[in-house]
Amino acid sequence: MPPRFYAPDLDIAQTQVTLPVGESQHLSRVLRLGSGDVVEVFDGRGLLMRGEVRRASPAGAILHLIARESPQPEAPYPLVVCAALLKGDAMDAVIRDATVLGAMAVVPMTTARTNVPIRRADPGRLHDRWQRVSIAAAKQCGRARLPVLADVQSFPDVLRTPAWTAWQRCLLVEPSHALAAHDHSVGQSLTTVDGAPLVMTCGPEGGWTSAEVQAAHAAGWTPWSLGPFTLRAEQVTLAALTVVRHAWFVSGDVAG
Amino acid sequence: MPPRFYAPDLDIAQTQVTLPVGESQHLSRVLRLGSGDVVEVFDGRGLLMRGEVRRASPAGAILHLIARESPQPEAPYPLVVCAALLKGDAMDAVIRDATVLGAMAVVPMTTARTNVPIRRADPGRLHDRWQRVSIAAAKQCGRARLPVLADVQSFPDVLRTPAWTAWQRCLLVEPSHALAAHDHSVGQSLTTVDGAPLVMTCGPEGGWTSAEVQAAHAAGWTPWSLGPFTLRAEQVTLAALTVVRHAWFVSGDVAG
Repeated sequence: MPPRFYAPDLDIAQTQVTLPVGESQHLSRVLRLGSGDVVEVFDGRGLLMRGEVRRASPAGAILHLIARESPQPEAPYPLVVCAALLKGDAMDAVIRDATVLGAMAVVPMTTARTNVPIRRADPGRLHDRWQRVSIAAAKQCGRARLPVLADVQSFPDVLRTPAWTAWQRCLLVEPSHALAAHDHSVGQSLTTVDGAPLVMTCGPEGGWTSAEVQAAHAAGWTPWSLGPFTLRAEQVTLAALTVVRHAWFVSGDVAG
Repeated sequence: MPPRFYAPDLDIAQTQVTLPVGESQHLSRVLRLGSGDVVEVFDGRGLLMRGEVRRASPAGAILHLIARESPQPEAPYPLVVCAALLKGDAMDAVIRDATVLGAMAVVPMTTARTNVPIRRADPGRLHDRWQRVSIAAAKQCGRARLPVLADVQSFPDVLRTPAWTAWQRCLLVEPSHALAAHDHSVGQSLTTVDGAPLVMTCGPEGGWTSAEVQAAHAAGWTPWSLGPFTLRAEQVTLAALTVVRHAWFVSGDVAG
């Protein structure tokens, strides 16, 4: 597989593209590619092309564009992940896994038990960091579309988001919640129906409060447990999205 | 949740148990527990008990045993993970996730593309390391049974293991393999049938060779893809086991 680069300015109507500085440095200084080397380049909105290095400058590498390529298929239905803020590497893992598994958007959330402070100066810096994580994940897995990284929202605001009213809306809960309620209907429907847009919320390290689970239920969200086992908060996104994508895959809804 | 300790000598007929040295040091020096503190203790074979610290010595802490507790439920069917050797932390993640998700055994494998050397002196050291990782994972997730950690085996030996002939045997493959073969029948059966013992093999960083996929097929193993996305090798165990456990969960086969 040729090395892959991110170029938001990629245009299929052009014969060449200039990479952003960070990508140019990676091409020339880290990978030490030179003129004539074959690469792939994507725009983060679904376009993937094969190219050839024309100028390997760290200030702005230039690629000659050869042909359009088929990226990793996107999920067959819109898929949004609302994830409670986790610390550092753990949140990076959530962003990375949501990218690899086809989320169209990631919404970082504050919840009652979220214990990650967002300082006044943080939001922009965090967004930039997550963007870099997401780009790196897309480069590695072959996806040509990047999820939209939303601003940090509060859990009550997430519950009330009008855009998702007609979607499957599920709240990932620990097994004790779901077993107590004898309610894993969303889990079942995901494995039997042929799919629908889905938004899921993943809680913080300490889980949801009872009030949050009740508020979600009152707002039309369904509690969903993956099963009677206890994952770490940063693993739940990967686990839950794999179950969803696998269910869509075996039901034949593989997007081309 | 009280702190949890591993004591292979735990005996339900006794009124107390002495912890191994490592666990005793953790109790007294790291957690700084003292006489009268409530703890949990498990034997790695399914027994979990509540206890109280009687003597907090780092050389051999003694717990007074109070009552039997319900551990995290085990998987309803035998589940074995054969995982190609990965480097350091990546293999630790595989052992940890297999433990949390209910594997009864983990078989580390060498395959054609395995590039992790096992030195003459290594096997015992690796086994000890993985055992520690598995104990730590069980303590964190509440499982009272530890998977058997088998000696490192070659992939051809794994394929020929007589004990699994009547089991569901699946070879986790990249989407390209499964899509080429239009064969994701095992994935479908896992979500529709009500379960059976299962052994799955997870490949190395570089994937399987075609010869390996063919040898597996000839030996009666079924290629299984999770879907059209590309996970890192160390994430495949978590993703695949979650799909299996979730399928068993929604079909109602939750072990008590």
